[in-house]
Amino acid sequence: MQLALSTWPEVERYLQRSTAIIIPIGSTEQHGPNGLIGTDSICPTTIAAGIAEKEDVLIAPTISYGMSQHHMGFAGSVTLRPSTLIQLIIDIVGSLEKHGFTHLYFLNGHGGNIAPVTSAFSEIYADFTNDGKQAPRCRLANWWRDAAIAKLAKALYGDAEGHHATVSEVALSYYAHPEAVKQAAMNPAVAATGEFYDAADFRRKFPDGRIGSSPQLATVADGERFYQLAVETLREDFLTFIKS
Amino acid sequence: MQLALSTWPEVERYLQRSTAIIIPIGSTEQHGPNGLIGTDSICPTTIAAGIAEKEDVLIAPTISYGMSQHHMGFAGSVTLRPSTLIQLIIDIVGSLEKHGFTHLYFLNGHGGNIAPVTSAFSEIYADFTNDGKQAPRCRLANWWRDAAIAKLAKALYGDAEGHHATVSEVALSYYAHPEAVKQAAMNPAVAATGEFYDAADFRRKFPDGRIGSSPQLATVADGERFYQLAVETLREDFLTFIKS
Amino acid sequence: MQLALSTWPEVERYLQRSTAIIIPIGSTEQHGPNGLIGTDSICPTTIAAGIAEKEDVLIAPTISYGMSQHHMGFAGSVTLRPSTLIQLIIDIVGSLEKHGFTHLYFLNGHGGNIAPVTSAFSEIYADFTNDGKQAPRCRLANWWRDAAIAKLAKALYGDAEGHHATVSEVALSYYAHPEAVKQAAMNPAVAATGEFYDAADFRRKFPDGRIGSSPQLATVADGERFYQLAVETLREDFLTFIKS
Amino acid sequence: MQLALSTWPEVERYLQRSTAIIIPIGSTEQHGPNGLIGTDSICPTTIAAGIAEKEDVLIAPTISYGMSQHHMGFAGSVTLRPSTLIQLIIDIVGSLEKHGFTHLYFLNGHGGNIAPVTSAFSEIYADFTNDGKQAPRCRLANWWRDAAIAKLAKALYGDAEGHHATVSEVALSYYAHPEAVKQAAMNPAVAATGEFYDAADFRRKFPDGRIGSSPQLATVADGERFYQLAVETLREDFLTFIKS
Amino acid sequence: MQLALSTWPEVERYLQRSTAIIIPIGSTEQHGPNGLIGTDSICPTTIAAGIAEKEDVLIAPTISYGMSQHHMGFAGSVTLRPSTLIQLIIDIVGSLEKHGFTHLYFLNGHGGNIAPVTSAFSEIYADFTNDGKQAPRCRLANWWRDAAIAKLAKALYGDAEGHHATVSEVALSYYAHPEAVKQAAMNPAVAATGEFYDAADFRRKFPDGRIGSSPQLATVADGERFYQLAVETLREDFLTFIKS
Amino acid sequence: MQLALSTWPEVERYLQRSTAIIIPIGSTEQHGPNGLIGTDSICPTTIAAGIAEKEDVLIAPTISYGMSQHHMGFAGSVTLRPSTLIQLIIDIVGSLEKHGFTHLYFLNGHGGNIAPVTSAFSEIYADFTNDGKQAPRCRLANWWRDAAIAKLAKALYGDAEGHHATVSEVALSYYAHPEAVKQAAMNPAVAATGEFYDAADFRRKFPDGRIGSSPQLATVADGERFYQLAVETLREDFLTFIKS
Repeated sequence: MQLALSTWPEVERYLQRSTAIIIPIGSTEQHGPNGLIGTDSICPTTIAAGIAEKEDVLIAPTISYGMSQHHMGFAGSVTLRPSTLIQLIIDIVGSLEKHGFTHLYFLNGHGGNIAPVTSAFSEIYADFTNDGKQAPRCRLANWWRDAAIAKLAKALYGDAEGHHATVSEVALSYYAHPEAVKQAAMNPAVAATGEFYDAADFRRKFPDGRIGSSPQLATVADGERFYQLAVETLREDFLTFIKS
Repeated sequence: MQLALSTWPEVERYLQRSTAIIIPIGSTEQHGPNGLIGTDSICPTTIAAGIAEKEDVLIAPTISYGMSQHHMGFAGSVTLRPSTLIQLIIDIVGSLEKHGFTHLYFLNGHGGNIAPVTSAFSEIYADFTNDGKQAPRCRLANWWRDAAIAKLAKALYGDAEGHHATVSEVALSYYAHPEAVKQAAMNPAVAATGEFYDAADFRRKFPDGRIGSSPQLATVADGERFYQLAVETLREDFLTFIKS
Repeated sequence: MQLALSTWPEVERYLQRSTAIIIPIGSTEQHGPNGLIGTDSICPTTIAAGIAEKEDVLIAPTISYGMSQHHMGFAGSVTLRPSTLIQLIIDIVGSLEKHGFTHLYFLNGHGGNIAPVTSAFSEIYADFTNDGKQAPRCRLANWWRDAAIAKLAKALYGDAEGHHATVSEVALSYYAHPEAVKQAAMNPAVAATGEFYDAADFRRKFPDGRIGSSPQLATVADGERFYQLAVETLREDFLTFIKS
Repeated sequence: MQLALSTWPEVERYLQRSTAIIIPIGSTEQHGPNGLIGTDSICPTTIAAGIAEKEDVLIAPTISYGMSQHHMGFAGSVTLRPSTLIQLIIDIVGSLEKHGFTHLYFLNGHGGNIAPVTSAFSEIYADFTNDGKQAPRCRLANWWRDAAIAKLAKALYGDAEGHHATVSEVALSYYAHPEAVKQAAMNPAVAATGEFYDAADFRRKFPDGRIGSSPQLATVADGERFYQLAVETLREDFLTFIKS
Repeated sequence: MQLALSTWPEVERYLQRSTAIIIPIGSTEQHGPNGLIGTDSICPTTIAAGIAEKEDVLIAPTISYGMSQHHMGFAGSVTLRPSTLIQLIIDIVGSLEKHGFTHLYFLNGHGGNIAPVTSAFSEIYADFTNDGKQAPRCRLANWWRDAAIAKLAKALYGDAEGHHATVSEVALSYYAHPEAVKQAAMNPAVAATGEFYDAADFRRKFPDGRIGSSPQLATVADGERFYQLAVETLREDFLTFIKS
Repeated sequence: MQLALSTWPEVERYLQRSTAIIIPIGSTEQHGPNGLIGTDSICPTTIAAGIAEKEDVLIAPTISYGMSQHHMGFAGSVTLRPSTLIQLIIDIVGSLEKHGFTHLYFLNGHGGNIAPVTSAFSEIYADFTNDGKQAPRCRLANWWRDAAIAKLAKALYGDAEGHHATVSEVALSYYAHPEAVKQAAMNPAVAATGEFYDAADFRRKFPDGRIGSSPQLATVADGERFYQLAVETLREDFLTFIKS
C-alpha cells in the first residue's frame, strides 16, 4: 500500500489495522561508470514495494536525496548537509507520529545516510523525552548489510562485490529498471579500494567512482535474486521490528 | 533524461550540451476523499517526464515532501517545517551548481511550497552574492497557476474546480496512475471555501479536506488533457527560462 | 494606542477590552531616485496610526528591517536573511501570545517579506499544534495589494504606477514625511519592467532602482488620498479579521 | 541624516564623505508603572537624532525589539531570543558592510541586549576572518552607562535612580514624548533591588516592574538635561570611535 | 565529589542531599609568552576542586573550550562560535535539570564566555517559561572579578596585573601545574593596553598576546595565595547562591 | 605535549615540526553500578597521554561531553544533542585548521559520538570544498574497537566483556584513577543484552545501566594491560594516519 497512491480515509483505516510504516531512503549520487545515480533510492524503493506485496504495510514516498558529500567530485551527485538530513528526518518522523504511527522503519540504500539518520533518531528521542512523551520507535535497516545479502554477493562475486557501486546494488537497480542497463568499459576490472576523506580525495583515489567493485558483472537476472532475497529477509526484519 | 537513471559520465556529457535541469517538487498530503496523498508530487513528476520526451533535458528526482502544515489534521499528511524545506532547497541547488548547472527549474505541484522555496532562493542568491560568485538562476514554476491550465479547468468545471483537491490535479494524477482511481461519496458536491489559519482550523472548516472543489468529477480522460496542455505550456515556460 | 508609548498596566487593561494588535512591518531598501529608503516601513506605520485614530487598537513598534536581498545592489539597502526574519516573527508572535493576544495583524509594506513571514506563520502554527496549544491567528495584510488601493493607483497613474518604487507608495511616504520630498531626474520617465533573479541582475536591469514606475509623479496631495483610502480599507480588513 | 528618509543616491554620496553609521537599538518591554514600553528604543533614537543635528552622520532605523526575556511577566513586553537577536545583528552588519560602511556604532538603550549583541560581534568578526576579509568595526555604546550620565543621575536622584525603569531613562523618554507622560502611584516610593533569574522570579521580586528606582521623579525638564548631556558625551564617543 | 569519578548510584544519592552542582568553564587560548593555553580552564577547575574539599558538592567535568575568537591570531587558540557555546550550555543545563539539579553554578575562567553564557541562560529561562516549567537557577561566577581577588592582585602587582594573561591567573595555573612553569623574555615588561575589535586587530596591538600585564611576575607561591583566597571567597558565593 | 600546558610560542614551534594533533573525546554518562561517569573521557585522555610519552605529538584538551541521549535515564548523565556536538566539532576543527593543523586525530571513547562526529566531518569537508579550500584530514579512532583490544577483552572475559560499561573500559579507567575504584553488587553477574531505542527503553531493559557486561571483573592490573596495548596499537594507527 503506497502512501502516495492512497487517500487520507484509507490511511485512517490502515491506522486501525497497523501503526507501522516503511520509509525508503536513498541518495542521488554517482555509482561508477555503469551504475545509476539513483541506485541507492531505487533499491530500497523496489524492496519496499516487494514487501508491500506480501504484507499489509504502508510505504511512504522515498527520500531520494541523502548525504553524499564524498561523491560531489562526480557530475550529477547531489548531497544534503548532515544537518539538513537530520532536520528532514525529524520532520517526517514528527509528522507520522502525530497520526499515530509508532513504528517507523527506514529502509536505507546508502551508507552515507547512517550517521545523520542515526543522529536524527537521537534528536527525536531526546525531544520526545524532554516533552514527557513516548517517542515512536525508529529503525534504520541497511539492506545491503543484511547477512544473507552479503553472503549471496560474496558467493556470486567474491571480492569483486566491492564497497561502492557494488555489483549487487547495480544488479538490483537493473532488475528494477531493465530499460536503464548501461554498458561501460572499466579499467581495472576490479576497482581499487582504500580509505578516503573528502570529495577531492575520493575522486583522486577512485577516478571512475567505484571502490573495489566490478559492477560490469551486474545483470538483471542477478538483480532479481537479490530482490527476492532482500524482500524475504527485510520483511522478516520488519516483522520482528514491529513486534518490539 | 532522468538523473536517477543516468550514470555520472552521461551527466558529464549532458552538461556539455546544457546546464539546465528540472526538479519536480510536490508534497505528501491529503487531497480530499478521493484524491491521492501524492497528488502534488505525481503531477509535476508526470509533466516533467512529458517535457523530457520532447526536449533533451535532465530531470532530477522529485522532492516528494513539502510544506503541508495546514493539512496535518488528516491522516497520512507529512510536513516539513519551512526552515527544513529552505535548507533542503539550498543544499540541492548548491550541489547542482557545483557541477555547472546554471538554470534550475523547480516544477512545483503544491502552493504551500511557494513561500519556503521562494525564501530559499533569496538565501541562495544572498549566499552567492556574499561570496562574490554568480548564483545559479532558480525558477519556481507552479503548473496549476499557468493561465492556459486555469482556463481549461474553468471551462471544464467552472467554480467546482476549487482551491484544494482541485478537479484538475486529481484528474492529472489519475491519468498518471489509473490503477489508483478512487471512488468516494462527497457531501456537499462542491466543498465549502474560505480562509483558514492552522491545521485545526482547516479541519474544522473543510472536514473532508477539499476546499471549494468537486474532485469526484476527475477522470483519466480529463487528466490526459491537463497533461498534454501542461507539458506544452510548461515546456515553453522552461525554454523561455533557459534563454534568460 | 501605541505600544511603545504605553505602560504595562495600560496594556493589561487593553487586553481586557481586546486581544488584537497591529504590527507594521516594512523594509530598509532603495526605492529609486526619489523614493525614501524607509518607504516600506513608513507606509504601514502611517496607515496603522491612522487606524488607531479611529479604532481602539494597539499598534506595536514597526519592524523596520525586512527581506530585501534583491535590492542589495543599491547603497543603503539592508536585508535580513529569510531565516532571520522567520525567527524574528516567531519570537514576536510568541511573546505577544503569552500576554493573551489572539489576533496578530501584520500590516505589511514590502513584497519581499511575504514569503518569509508566511513561512513564519506556518512554523508558528506547527509549533503550537505540536505543543497541543491553540495558535494565535496571524494575518499578513499587504496594503498596496488592496483592490481599492490598486484601483486608485491605476486611475491616477495607469501603468506608470509600476512594480517597485511605485508612485502610490512614494506618494504616501511623502504625505507622512513632507520634509523629505525629493526631486530627481529620471530617464526614461517610466522605468523598464521585467523579471529578475538576484541583486546583480536587478541592478543590471533596473539601474536606478525603479521597476516600471514613474515616482516623480508622487505628490503629498496624492499621498493623502492613498492614506485616507488605506486607513479606511485596511481598517475594515482588520475588523473582519478580528471577528474570525 | 536619517537612512529611512534618504534615497540611495544620497547614501551613495554620503559614503564618499563617511563610512560610519549609527544604529539605535532598544527594546519593547515594561518600564514600571509610569515608564513607557518603548523607553529603551526611544532614548537611543532621540540621542542619535540629536547627534545627527550636530554631525554629518547617517542614522539607521532603530532596532525596536531586543532581548527582554526577564520582562515577559509584564503585559506588552516582547522578547527576541538571544540567538534571533544575534542573527539580526549579523544580517544588518553584513548588509551595511557590503555598501562600504566600516564603522558601525550601535547606540544601545537596553542592558539585556549587551550579551547577544556582543556575541553577534564575535560571530561577525569570526566570519570575516574565516573568509580572509577585513571585518567592519562594531561598537556597542550603552548610553546610560556613560560616566557623565551616571553622575548626573546620581546627583539628581541618588540611589532612587535605580536599575530598571530608572528615573533618567523615563525622564529622557518623557522629553522625547511629552504627550505620553504618565502618572502612577508607586508603593514603595523606591522599589526594591536585588538579583533575579527568570521572568517569574523577576515578577515575584519586583511586582510593579521597577528595580530600585523612583521613576515618578521623572520630568520632561530633567529629560532635556539628560538629552543634552547624552548627545554631547555620546557624540564624542562616536567621534573617537570613527577615528580608530 | 567529581562527577567524572562517580557512579550513577552515587549521584542519585547525592541528589538526595543536594541539587546543586558546580560546572567549571574555561577556554583554550593563548595567554602570552609564558602563560598556559589552558589557563582559563585550569583556574576554575582547580578552584572547584578546592571548594569540593571543603563542601559536599558535585563538580562536573570542565568545559575546556570557550569563546576565544579574538585570540585566534595566536597558534593553539581554539574558539567556539558564540552560537555553539550557547547550544552547549543549553544542552548541559537541560541534561542536569532532568536529573533534578536546581542550582547550576558555572565557575568561569574566561571573560569571552560571559556574553554567550549569559545569552544561553536567557534562552534556557525562555524555554522553560514557554513550557510552563520552573527553570533551574544558573549563575555565572567569574572568579577573577571577585572583589577580594582583584584587591590581592592590585596589592601584589599594581597595574602590572593587566587585563589578559594577568599575573594572577598565570600564577594560579602555575600553582596547579608547577611542572609547566615557563620562562620567557618579555618586552616591554608591562604590556600595552587598549581596546581592540577582531583577532587581527588584537594581534596587531598586542603582538605577544598580553594586555597590560607582566605575567613574568607569576610564581607558584603567589598562585597558592590566589588559590586559597579564591576557594574561600567563591565557596561563600556558591553557598549564598544555593540558598536563593 | 599537552596543548593546555603549552604556550602559544611553543605551539608555533611544534607546528614547524608537525601539523598533527590528537583530540580525545568522550562523554559524561552512567557506566553501570561500579563504572565511572567519566569512563569514556578518561580512557582516551589516558591513552593519548601515553602516546604523547612516546611520540612528539600535541594533545588537545579532552571533549568531555558527548552524545549520550540513551543514558539520560540514569542520574548524572549529560548529553549534547547531535546537532550541538556537530557544531562543536566543526568549530574545533576550524580553529585548528587556521593555525595550520592538517591531521586531526579524534581519539574517541564513546560509541554514541560516532554518528554526530562522522556527520561533522562531512559538514567540514563540504564547507572547505565549497570554499575551494583543502580540508584538514579528520579521523575518528574508536579505541575499544581496535582488533587487538577486542581480542584481549575476549581472551580475558569472553562474553562478559559486554557492550556498555564493558570490563575493559572500566578497568582502564581504574588504572587511570585507582583512587576511584568502586565496589557494587551486581545481579545478574552478566547483564542482559539486546537492542533498545530511547532512554526510557534503555532503563527498562538495562535497569542498572550495564549491557551484557560484568564490570565487577575490572581491576587496575587489567586496566594497565589495556592501557599498554591501546597506547601501542593506537599510536601505530595515528602514525599511519599522519602519513596519509
